[in-house]
Amino acid sequence: MSMHGTETDQSYARAGFGARAHRGSRPAIVVVDLTNGFTDPSLPTGADLSSVVAATGQLIGAGRSADVPVLFTTIAYTPAELSGGAVAWLRKAPGMASLREGSSAVALDARLPVGPSDHLITKKGASAFFGTGLGALLSGLRVDTVLICGATTSGCVRASAVDAVQSGFDVLVPRQCVGDRADGPHQANLFDIHAKYGDVIELDDALGYLGSLAAAVSV
Amino acid sequence: MSMHGTETDQSYARAGFGARAHRGSRPAIVVVDLTNGFTDPSLPTGADLSSVVAATGQLIGAGRSADVPVLFTTIAYTPAELSGGAVAWLRKAPGMASLREGSSAVALDARLPVGPSDHLITKKGASAFFGTGLGALLSGLRVDTVLICGATTSGCVRASAVDAVQSGFDVLVPRQCVGDRADGPHQANLFDIHAKYGDVIELDDALGYLGSLAAAVSV
Amino acid sequence: MSMHGTETDQSYARAGFGARAHRGSRPAIVVVDLTNGFTDPSLPTGADLSSVVAATGQLIGAGRSADVPVLFTTIAYTPAELSGGAVAWLRKAPGMASLREGSSAVALDARLPVGPSDHLITKKGASAFFGTGLGALLSGLRVDTVLICGATTSGCVRASAVDAVQSGFDVLVPRQCVGDRADGPHQANLFDIHAKYGDVIELDDALGYLGSLAAAVSV
Amino acid sequence: MSMHGTETDQSYARAGFGARAHRGSRPAIVVVDLTNGFTDPSLPTGADLSSVVAATGQLIGAGRSADVPVLFTTIAYTPAELSGGAVAWLRKAPGMASLREGSSAVALDARLPVGPSDHLITKKGASAFFGTGLGALLSGLRVDTVLICGATTSGCVRASAVDAVQSGFDVLVPRQCVGDRADGPHQANLFDIHAKYGDVIELDDALGYLGSLAAAVSV
Repeated sequence: MSMHGTETDQSYARAGFGARAHRGSRPAIVVVDLTNGFTDPSLPTGADLSSVVAATGQLIGAGRSADVPVLFTTIAYTPAELSGGAVAWLRKAPGMASLREGSSAVALDARLPVGPSDHLITKKGASAFFGTGLGALLSGLRVDTVLICGATTSGCVRASAVDAVQSGFDVLVPRQCVGDRADGPHQANLFDIHAKYGDVIELDDALGYLGSLAAAVSV
Repeated sequence: MSMHGTETDQSYARAGFGARAHRGSRPAIVVVDLTNGFTDPSLPTGADLSSVVAATGQLIGAGRSADVPVLFTTIAYTPAELSGGAVAWLRKAPGMASLREGSSAVALDARLPVGPSDHLITKKGASAFFGTGLGALLSGLRVDTVLICGATTSGCVRASAVDAVQSGFDVLVPRQCVGDRADGPHQANLFDIHAKYGDVIELDDALGYLGSLAAAVSV
Repeated sequence: MSMHGTETDQSYARAGFGARAHRGSRPAIVVVDLTNGFTDPSLPTGADLSSVVAATGQLIGAGRSADVPVLFTTIAYTPAELSGGAVAWLRKAPGMASLREGSSAVALDARLPVGPSDHLITKKGASAFFGTGLGALLSGLRVDTVLICGATTSGCVRASAVDAVQSGFDVLVPRQCVGDRADGPHQANLFDIHAKYGDVIELDDALGYLGSLAAAVSV
Repeated sequence: MSMHGTETDQSYARAGFGARAHRGSRPAIVVVDLTNGFTDPSLPTGADLSSVVAATGQLIGAGRSADVPVLFTTIAYTPAELSGGAVAWLRKAPGMASLREGSSAVALDARLPVGPSDHLITKKGASAFFGTGLGALLSGLRVDTVLICGATTSGCVRASAVDAVQSGFDVLVPRQCVGDRADGPHQANLFDIHAKYGDVIELDDALGYLGSLAAAVSV
């Protein structure tokens, strides 16, 4: 993660960043905004995130064996929110206004293995936690560790990682499970997340972690 | 703000990012973490942010003439927070543990023109809004626009800008008033903020905005 | 509001409660949970709130003339929330589990004059603010005063009044616009609200307030 | 808890309220506002809560043996908050303005057995959760159950109980550990809490619960 050069690395080491996140016994998988609006490259806000969707599906599969809760998010705006000027973010990022409640853009990507007991959380901003019930659900589920997947790394994934650790949870971001429409911001935000908010880890590592929990469950 | 190249710029234009933020009639200045811990280069978490402190002082001066509320933040941990393992962020960023309540590291930089009616908000995470009364204060003050200053651009400033726009406020970030311990993350986060959360503007522009409000006040 | 006797009144006067709430120039009407689940007396969680629905309709009518934003709330649970044990409130108040997403119990009472630009906010707890985007919407709409209607006075109305004033808004509760399934808790909570969180006022008074704003708008 | 009569009891039973709260293996004790401002009867906002302070001390003692985290709250306002009109609650409840940061009114009652690893949370509103880091601390401590003590039952205790269950925690309120300046509101709010948000239990029951955890710890 030394994309910014040795001087930055030294500065960060001195400031005490980049410690290893704890991995608890009660993780949850939070899948941020893997809706058609972000994964369909034919839509203006979308990009080809096929490999991200596939890797996230693999992670969810491993989570099922360990009874890990899975929570999906989607951004969706009502007509009132789209027309009334109430949502400041829509003024700055007006492209998000294409994410209309009830449209296919806000539906989860059909390639994801969504289960009947998975949670679906509708949000209005970047963070999966802001103005939603996610934090209360995670506390209610007695979760200690959050695995964050989804899109985009530089937007909603980053914002959700910051809020997750602020909310008291340890954060893991499997690198293959997050994606972006542009590589520069993707890499820059992986750097920030790994330095300050959660461990950016390999998918194999994440699968191993969930596998060890599944083994404990099945004993 | 094209640090990531033409392809990224085209992708962002297509996705509908980077619109101009509205500038309201009732701004507030939020100064994030310009405490000795971040502005004293002799401390491990600090850097030389003299020019940021000076520019922020200039902005505050202009704000005084327009009766603009000023709110400072500091990160400060109690012994219980430092020892009990309750703060997940301290596990990932253990360097922050040097910001002990009552120490000089958590005091505002003495070069800042702090006034008797300015607010001081103690926070425990990256965002000035998370787990604090800042959002309620801004609503109570009937603020519509937030000018964000402080440190670090890639950490607490970024997190605060995301929360400010999510909270319903338009966001302006005067470039000269924010700083970081490393230039790569600084630039990458200015790019993200400007694309998605608030306008990164020149100090002169911000001074002109506040000056026009001051003229209206004094009429 | 002296239901608890002279001694209580004296104690409250001494403690400095019961001041008059400010009435701002930019109110919003928040209608809490006037869904069939609460207004249909044939449902277990319901009661006959016909007069509350009628009075709230009258208030909304007056608000339309003054361009006052109207925001409705509903409690609605997904299958995941109902089955997974994630929602602590459902353990304590299991009757709320009849409020299933998509059922008629969670639909707004058809007698309410819902407009196309009104907001509808789905919540999972008692307060209209908790884990929802309501606070951000009110800030984004530059609201200063919240008129709270709905049901039940002793549950979601009370919780919403507390959060509204904590969020920075002045609070008015038109007495005829709130109701409950039982009179004892209704009266006791009107007492608490009026003493500590917002003014319990007569409907006529509220209509006059909105009327004066409408006159100003139409000038 | 049938203070409101049989009809109310039947209505509540039909609506599905009053189930028994779960008692988890990882409780925390939250002590709301047992500061001199509330426990010193010579102060305008105070009352004689000696028995509440004593019972809370007993509960804390039992909690120590089971390594139960203890978190105290205090309301304290800065000069900026007191003078600037930013805090809507101070307009409605101006008596709270006597709770000045640094004054003895905001200090914890000296009779409480405060330990070096206990948390102290400063709040600005009624709820111990609103605009504070309490929710994040409880999640970070992996708490599942919250025992709420303190004052006043009809104000900050009630608001904190509502937020605790909304935040995902099971709620217990030992009757002898909460108090109020007036008995009517005290009883009415115990009724509401027990019906909807958490179990109002006897101190002996709470001590037994903590004692059983302590026994498990010491094995």
